[in-house]
Amino acid sequence: MSSGVLRVGEPVLLIDRKQRRYLIDLKKGGEFHTHAGVIPHDEIIGVEEGARLLSGRGAGFLALRPTQADAVLKMPRGAQVVYPKDSAAILTWADIHPGARVLEAGIGSGALSMALLRAGAAVTGYECREDFLKVARANVARFCGPEELERYRTELRDVYEGVDESDLDRVVLDLPEPWRVVAHSAAALRGGGIFLAYTPSIMQVKRLREALEDSPFELHSTVEVLMRGWHVAGEAVRPDHRMVAHTGFLTTSRLCAP
Amino acid sequence: MSSGVLRVGEPVLLIDRKQRRYLIDLKKGGEFHTHAGVIPHDEIIGVEEGARLLSGRGAGFLALRPTQADAVLKMPRGAQVVYPKDSAAILTWADIHPGARVLEAGIGSGALSMALLRAGAAVTGYECREDFLKVARANVARFCGPEELERYRTELRDVYEGVDESDLDRVVLDLPEPWRVVAHSAAALRGGGIFLAYTPSIMQVKRLREALEDSPFELHSTVEVLMRGWHVAGEAVRPDHRMVAHTGFLTTSRLCAP
Amino acid sequence: MSSGVLRVGEPVLLIDRKQRRYLIDLKKGGEFHTHAGVIPHDEIIGVEEGARLLSGRGAGFLALRPTQADAVLKMPRGAQVVYPKDSAAILTWADIHPGARVLEAGIGSGALSMALLRAGAAVTGYECREDFLKVARANVARFCGPEELERYRTELRDVYEGVDESDLDRVVLDLPEPWRVVAHSAAALRGGGIFLAYTPSIMQVKRLREALEDSPFELHSTVEVLMRGWHVAGEAVRPDHRMVAHTGFLTTSRLCAP
Amino acid sequence: MSSGVLRVGEPVLLIDRKQRRYLIDLKKGGEFHTHAGVIPHDEIIGVEEGARLLSGRGAGFLALRPTQADAVLKMPRGAQVVYPKDSAAILTWADIHPGARVLEAGIGSGALSMALLRAGAAVTGYECREDFLKVARANVARFCGPEELERYRTELRDVYEGVDESDLDRVVLDLPEPWRVVAHSAAALRGGGIFLAYTPSIMQVKRLREALEDSPFELHSTVEVLMRGWHVAGEAVRPDHRMVAHTGFLTTSRLCAP
Repeated sequence: MSSGVLRVGEPVLLIDRKQRRYLIDLKKGGEFHTHAGVIPHDEIIGVEEGARLLSGRGAGFLALRPTQADAVLKMPRGAQVVYPKDSAAILTWADIHPGARVLEAGIGSGALSMALLRAGAAVTGYECREDFLKVARANVARFCGPEELERYRTELRDVYEGVDESDLDRVVLDLPEPWRVVAHSAAALRGGGIFLAYTPSIMQVKRLREALEDSPFELHSTVEVLMRGWHVAGEAVRPDHRMVAHTGFLTTSRLCAP
Repeated sequence: MSSGVLRVGEPVLLIDRKQRRYLIDLKKGGEFHTHAGVIPHDEIIGVEEGARLLSGRGAGFLALRPTQADAVLKMPRGAQVVYPKDSAAILTWADIHPGARVLEAGIGSGALSMALLRAGAAVTGYECREDFLKVARANVARFCGPEELERYRTELRDVYEGVDESDLDRVVLDLPEPWRVVAHSAAALRGGGIFLAYTPSIMQVKRLREALEDSPFELHSTVEVLMRGWHVAGEAVRPDHRMVAHTGFLTTSRLCAP
Repeated sequence: MSSGVLRVGEPVLLIDRKQRRYLIDLKKGGEFHTHAGVIPHDEIIGVEEGARLLSGRGAGFLALRPTQADAVLKMPRGAQVVYPKDSAAILTWADIHPGARVLEAGIGSGALSMALLRAGAAVTGYECREDFLKVARANVARFCGPEELERYRTELRDVYEGVDESDLDRVVLDLPEPWRVVAHSAAALRGGGIFLAYTPSIMQVKRLREALEDSPFELHSTVEVLMRGWHVAGEAVRPDHRMVAHTGFLTTSRLCAP
Repeated sequence: MSSGVLRVGEPVLLIDRKQRRYLIDLKKGGEFHTHAGVIPHDEIIGVEEGARLLSGRGAGFLALRPTQADAVLKMPRGAQVVYPKDSAAILTWADIHPGARVLEAGIGSGALSMALLRAGAAVTGYECREDFLKVARANVARFCGPEELERYRTELRDVYEGVDESDLDRVVLDLPEPWRVVAHSAAALRGGGIFLAYTPSIMQVKRLREALEDSPFELHSTVEVLMRGWHVAGEAVRPDHRMVAHTGFLTTSRLCAP
C-alpha cells in the first residue's frame, strides 16, 4: 500500500480543479468519463500517486489513493455510514488494538468494520439484514487488504437474540436498541472488556445507561464528537459556514466482576 | 494484552468509588498506599481484570488495565500531551495504517507516538529537547509492547534543519513552526504522502497554509475537533457543565507532482 | 403591538403544514396566492393572531405576527443580515439599554438597527452604500413602530472618514476594517462607552485587537456564539443534523481615560 | 444612566491589572479595601466613568459602571442565575419588546427579570420561595432604574397552581416542571403569544415538548446556545482552553387557535 505507483485493481480518487471527487477502480482498458472529456485508465496505471493528469479536453485531475475516510464518504451505502469523525473516536474510546477480539453489530455499510480491521482487530460482524451485509462485505473487500480480510468474519444474524462468542475484548454496537445487548455482552466479554454503543438519540443513551447501571459494567461514559472545518484563504480565515451538528452519541463502559 | 489476568510488570489503573484514578506498575511485593489504607500488589497480580479489591480499611477499588487514552492522561509529561480526542483524529486524517512509514516531530511526551505505533506505523521521531525525548521514550517503553517498540526509532535533532528520511508515507508535526518543515516534507514524502500539523494558534494555521499553497502539496484542509461529555443520571440528562474548548487545529495536505 | 387582532398594514407570517413561511403585508382586497389556492387578505384582517386559516383548496395555514427574528430571516436583503443569534448577543455584550446613544456602521440590511431600536437605543446609522441604505430604511420602516422610527437617523457616509457625533454611549460596527474606526470611536464615545465590532474573519479580529491595544480602550474581549437546534419527536431526541457553524466574531472593548 | 460621571448610590466595578473585578456601591465616606490598599469612595464619586484610580499603595484600578452582564455575574445569588448568553437569547427568541406583558416564573435571583425589564417588558414574577424572592427583589432594585421598577410586580406563589393574569404576551419559565404550566399558559396568553422555557435537562425538554404537542401551541422549537471566548495576544490567537459547555435548553412555542 505504501508504494507510490498506482496499480491495476486499486481504487483511485480523481479530483478536479473544483475539488470534485470521483472514485474509480483501475482496470486495463478502462475509461474515466467526465463532462470534461475522457481519461483512459491506462494513463493512470503505473504513474506515481499524486500525478496531475489531463482529460481529453484539457481539464486537470489529481490521481490519489483514497484515504480510508475518503473511501467511506464515497463508497456505496446500504445503511447510513459511521462518519470518519466518529469511527476515529470509536477506535480510541473502545481502545482498539492489534489482536483485539471485537464483536461488531450491526455492520451497516461496513465503514466501521474497515476502521476496526485497519486498527488490527479480529472482527466478528453480526448483521441481521442481508442487503446491508452484502454491501458491507463488498465495501470491505474493495478497500481492505488480504491480511485484513483474513481477520473479518460476518454472520447474518440478530445480535439481540444472543452472542455465541466468548472471551471477547470489545463489543461495538451501531444498532437501535443497544440495551438489549448489555447482558449478552457481559457474558461474552472477558473481565475489563469494553462495551461501546453509537446511538443517534439521547433517549437511546438514557435507556442504555439505565441498563448498564443494572449490570456488572462500570465507568460509564457518554460523549459526542464535533468536527468543525476552517476556511483559510488569504485574510479570510474563519470556520466554515455550515457543519455537521450531530451524528451520534458514543457510550462506553467496562466489564467488571459482578 | 488480551488475556484477562493481570500480570507482574503491567501498568494497572486502580479506581475508587469517587472515580479517582491511580496508575501503578505491578511489582512482586509492591504496595499501593492510599488514604483509605494499603493494597498489596500481590493481591492484584493474577486476578482477572475488572476485579473489585478492598483496601486494608475496606475501601473498594476496581483494577483495570489503562486504555491508551487513560495512559496518556495519567503518564508523566515533559511537554504538553496530544489529547486522545486529537490523536484519534490524527490517526484518521493522516490515514495511518499498518506499515506506514511515518516521521513524527516533535514527539513531546510520546502520547502521539504511542497512538501511531499502536496503529501499526513504523515511526521515526525527531525531538530537539533531550528532556522531552527521555520522558517520551520512557512513556512509550512503559505502555507499548515489544513488537511496537521495534517499530520506534528516535533521534535527538531539530527537524527544521532537515530530514534524512525519504519515501515516507506520512509526516506528522506537533511543533511551533510547521511551515519550516513543508519543503523538507515535500522532499521526504513519496507522491500521495500526507502531511499533518497540529497547532494551537490559528495564526500558525494561516502561515502554514500559505507555505502549503506555495508548494507541491494539494487538498489542504484544516479542522478542529470538539468532544463534549454528557452527564446521564436518572432524569438528569445533560451535557457536562464545562468542557475543553480548544487544544489545537489539525491541518492536512497531500503531496502531488510539482 | 400587543393586541391579538391582525390589522391592515401589518406584516403577517402565514405558515403551512410543512412549516414553510410566507411573509405578507395585510392590504384590504389583497390576496395570498399559493400552490394550494388563494387566501383573501380580508379573511385575515380582524382575526385573532394564531388563527388557523384554510386556502381555497383546503390547505391549512397559521396566521402569526413575525417575531423580530422571523422578520430578519424573511426580509429583503441588500447586504448580508446579522443573524438573530448574533444580534441577541450584540444587545447584551454592548449592553444596549433604553436611551443609549448608539452609532451603528455599516447598517447593511437594517437587521441590527431593528434590534437596537427595539432595545430602546437612539441610533445614528452610517452606511456608505446607497443601495444598502435604501433597503435598510425600507426594512426598518416596515417592521418598526413610529416611536422606534423617531429614534432612527441614517446618513449616507463612510465611517472610516470620521464620526461627527460625540458623547456616544455605544459604537457598533459591522464592516470590513473596524480598526479604522478605533480612533474615531475613542473621540466620539464618552468615558466607559462600549465599542463592539462584528467580523467574519479571525484575521480582522487580530488586527482590531492590535489597534485596541494601542488605544485608550480596555477590557477587550472576543467571543463567538453558536446556536444548535434540537429535533424532538417522540423517542427521537437529538441535535439537528446540520447547523450554522459560523457567522462572525464579536469583539468588545470599553473606553477608559488615556 | 448615560452620563459619564459616577454618582453616589451607583454600583461601580473596580477592575485591577489582573482583571479581577470588585463591585461596590458608591457611598459618601465609603472605602474600598483591597490587599493593595484603600481607595476612598470620595475619590471615585464625581469622576468620569473609565477613570484610572490608584490605591493607597499604588495599585491601578479602572472604575466602570457594570454592564447588565457584569452585574448578573457579580450579584448575590439565591438560586442559580440565568447566564447572559442565555438571557440574551431568551429576549430574542421570546421576542420581548417594549410594552410586552410578560409572566416570569420562577424568578430565581432576578437576573432574567433585569433583562426583561431593560427590554421594556411589564413583568409579573411568580416565585414560590421567599428567600429567592427577597434576593431577586434586592438585585433588581440595585441594578434597575425607577422607570423599570415601576414595570416590575412580584408574587410569592407557585405557578403550578395556576395563573391569574390573562391576555399575556409572553410566558417565560425557569423552573423544574414547565409542562405543568402549559395549560395555565394557554389560558393566560393571548393568541400568537409566546411560551418559553429554560431547562437544564433534555428529559425536561422531552416531557415539555410532549405537553406542547398535546396543546393548542404550535411551532415548537428547542435550541441550545454556546459561547466560546477567544484568546488574542500577538501571534497567539486561539479559542480559550475551557468553556461553559452547558447551562440549559431553550424551548419556545406559540399559542394558536385550538
